[in-house]
Amino acid sequence: MKTALFPGSFDPITIAHLDIVQRAMPLFDKVVIGIGLNSSKASFLSPEKREEIVRAVFENNPKIEIQTYEGLTVDFCEKINAQYMIRGIRSVADFEYERAIAQINAAMKPNIETIFILSKPEFSAISSTIVRDILRNNGDVSKFLPSEALSHLY
Amino acid sequence: MKTALFPGSFDPITIAHLDIVQRAMPLFDKVVIGIGLNSSKASFLSPEKREEIVRAVFENNPKIEIQTYEGLTVDFCEKINAQYMIRGIRSVADFEYERAIAQINAAMKPNIETIFILSKPEFSAISSTIVRDILRNNGDVSKFLPSEALSHLY
Amino acid sequence: MKTALFPGSFDPITIAHLDIVQRAMPLFDKVVIGIGLNSSKASFLSPEKREEIVRAVFENNPKIEIQTYEGLTVDFCEKINAQYMIRGIRSVADFEYERAIAQINAAMKPNIETIFILSKPEFSAISSTIVRDILRNNGDVSKFLPSEALSHLY
Amino acid sequence: MKTALFPGSFDPITIAHLDIVQRAMPLFDKVVIGIGLNSSKASFLSPEKREEIVRAVFENNPKIEIQTYEGLTVDFCEKINAQYMIRGIRSVADFEYERAIAQINAAMKPNIETIFILSKPEFSAISSTIVRDILRNNGDVSKFLPSEALSHLY
Amino acid sequence: MKTALFPGSFDPITIAHLDIVQRAMPLFDKVVIGIGLNSSKASFLSPEKREEIVRAVFENNPKIEIQTYEGLTVDFCEKINAQYMIRGIRSVADFEYERAIAQINAAMKPNIETIFILSKPEFSAISSTIVRDILRNNGDVSKFLPSEALSHLY
Amino acid sequence: MKTALFPGSFDPITIAHLDIVQRAMPLFDKVVIGIGLNSSKASFLSPEKREEIVRAVFENNPKIEIQTYEGLTVDFCEKINAQYMIRGIRSVADFEYERAIAQINAAMKPNIETIFILSKPEFSAISSTIVRDILRNNGDVSKFLPSEALSHLY
Repeated sequence: MKTALFPGSFDPITIAHLDIVQRAMPLFDKVVIGIGLNSSKASFLSPEKREEIVRAVFENNPKIEIQTYEGLTVDFCEKINAQYMIRGIRSVADFEYERAIAQINAAMKPNIETIFILSKPEFSAISSTIVRDILRNNGDVSKFLPSEALSHLY
Repeated sequence: MKTALFPGSFDPITIAHLDIVQRAMPLFDKVVIGIGLNSSKASFLSPEKREEIVRAVFENNPKIEIQTYEGLTVDFCEKINAQYMIRGIRSVADFEYERAIAQINAAMKPNIETIFILSKPEFSAISSTIVRDILRNNGDVSKFLPSEALSHLY
Repeated sequence: MKTALFPGSFDPITIAHLDIVQRAMPLFDKVVIGIGLNSSKASFLSPEKREEIVRAVFENNPKIEIQTYEGLTVDFCEKINAQYMIRGIRSVADFEYERAIAQINAAMKPNIETIFILSKPEFSAISSTIVRDILRNNGDVSKFLPSEALSHLY
Repeated sequence: MKTALFPGSFDPITIAHLDIVQRAMPLFDKVVIGIGLNSSKASFLSPEKREEIVRAVFENNPKIEIQTYEGLTVDFCEKINAQYMIRGIRSVADFEYERAIAQINAAMKPNIETIFILSKPEFSAISSTIVRDILRNNGDVSKFLPSEALSHLY
Repeated sequence: MKTALFPGSFDPITIAHLDIVQRAMPLFDKVVIGIGLNSSKASFLSPEKREEIVRAVFENNPKIEIQTYEGLTVDFCEKINAQYMIRGIRSVADFEYERAIAQINAAMKPNIETIFILSKPEFSAISSTIVRDILRNNGDVSKFLPSEALSHLY
Repeated sequence: MKTALFPGSFDPITIAHLDIVQRAMPLFDKVVIGIGLNSSKASFLSPEKREEIVRAVFENNPKIEIQTYEGLTVDFCEKINAQYMIRGIRSVADFEYERAIAQINAAMKPNIETIFILSKPEFSAISSTIVRDILRNNGDVSKFLPSEALSHLY
């Protein structure tokens, strides 16, 4: 069984995340959305709210499984028997960040392969950081989030 | 009337900021220097001090107007009827950051156009971040700030 | 009178070129589309065909003037009394290329200012080079060229 | 059946190409190595020699099929019923080039998905261009080519 | 006497740092490892622990001198009569950061020259930031640190 | 004896080349300017003219030696007993190109170390390519070439 992990903070999940999952999904038998909980970094939304939104977005999708995790992402991969990680790339800065992470991961767990999908141009500027900034300033984020997410945010 | 906003934190304003404004100014009837106040981020200089310095730098310039603002930059653009934003680009990292912001802004307010000016090579390393770091270490910043700013800092 | 030059080979003009001109146009009284003829480099379309297509695209636009030129772009700017150059940027590679050209131009003619507009994300992959490659392989370029250009190509 | 195309000039195939194919292969039922023949560009090795070397490298691999093609890569994808393309990325320059190609391909054939694998750091400097340059200067390329390729080159 | 400063936080020192020092050392008569103490930023390891580890790594190396410093790096250069700074570059992001710092330093102290060494590909993903992150998650960092450092960390 | 090679086409040598040599020179006992002759690529200036200009620029400099070479640069390094190569970096594109070359060189000759110097910002746009382009269009290149070179060009 081909299992892939799509890890992230999802604080909150955006349409750019959703697009990557939907395009990568046909390659795998199961895709685990792993919501990373980083106890040393304050998040905007609580872990419970982040999970609630991700569950609403992927409801009734039999290939998708949603889990939260703490610790190193490669350790979580091993725990759930994922042979692959899926990562989206939007920009040169993303590419360099992902290249370093993938190289470190390969040094620690050579059996896990990272598969990259380039974000669609119309989604390439969307990030959770920007969405949070707009939310903090009472702006409209409906163009940047999956429709299922919106009712859980307001 | 062609009105442009030049937004920033100006914590403090540098000669690189001044150069961009001076080069962009002939294109517009009015340029508003918008000093963004971000209540969730501690600034080095107080909003009052930042505004005092910006006013000293642009004193007696009839095309320049100085305002502080809170909230989203595109909302402030609308409030002051600015059809344009002016941004300087120094580096590849700046370019990618500005591209994402401009794309998000265009999604929110399609009528506002962002105009980019490339910083002169001799100013391309100057940033408010580096100036603050030198100030914190009691170094000499006189090469990096407009002369009118210096007397307001010491 | 504010006059800007938008220089290029336009071999052929694409919808990405058109988008930059349309967004920059409100800033200027006149925009000259300068079709550069480089005698030392073979072009795909003849100079006459390139000019014919550009004329078809901008027909009846009173602010636009179309000219061909040889020699340095900054010399052509001076000849037509353009105080500005307009350039589009699609990518990091474009940015670095344009930065070098703008810096050399500023060393040669300090009075000419280059104004940059970032291409829209949906146009950021479109280049004359890719269009020529598709045309050589008998592919469909209708999504990448202004509609007025298509009838002149086939 | 999940079929992927790995397109290239393979002039000649390098160990960096081989590494990408080997890492991507487990995801697919069949991987077609497509040797692009570009009649308008002179190649270093003849199409026959390039194919001979690629065949030697992948001999006895039941999942691999080797074909040459002319014309647009997306058209060849359709012809062989490949739903996926595999591309390796070594550098920022590669990333920007691949992003533009993938975006144009998606505009022409939205059903073909491109999957990216990052080259291993120790292979990230290896390119057919550099190998050809070393060969032209009678240097030793044995560290950069699959061992099966070497006997076919000398 | 040719003296070079290799400045950093060394929180903790990695094999990538060590590699740069070893490759640059033959060029100089003395290399000072300068451990920067930044009072406004919390460090992961105490200054004492960082210095203890650096001393363990370079023990018995007659060309190496280890010092801690506060304030601007260029001022420390002057204090120790170093005419050179040594910096490693791993990525495009590093390059742009280093270029800005080198340009500011050259404006402040034109007599100090910065010499750059590119990190080996197998070390290009290793950073103190990533090592700290792995340590916080109880992962194994033995592939990323000099062997002398490990016993001082656990 | 510390010997470094500064290789290039020098078609023609620019003030940016000169600046790199002058800043690197104090580190070495001898710097060999190696003018690469690439028989498969047409040059703008003849090898004799390029050497004549380089000789004029470095006349009476006892540390500088000028040679032409064919073949791989690392082989020439070995021939002249140079333990170091000096390379200037102007931009991200330069950095990526140099990184690949340095990595390939290190694979072929691990004993040769490449030392990088970043070009001064005011020289970062100057390249032989741009100088040739201006010369072909009868423009003024006096700001971009060492004064000793100019009389040899006209």
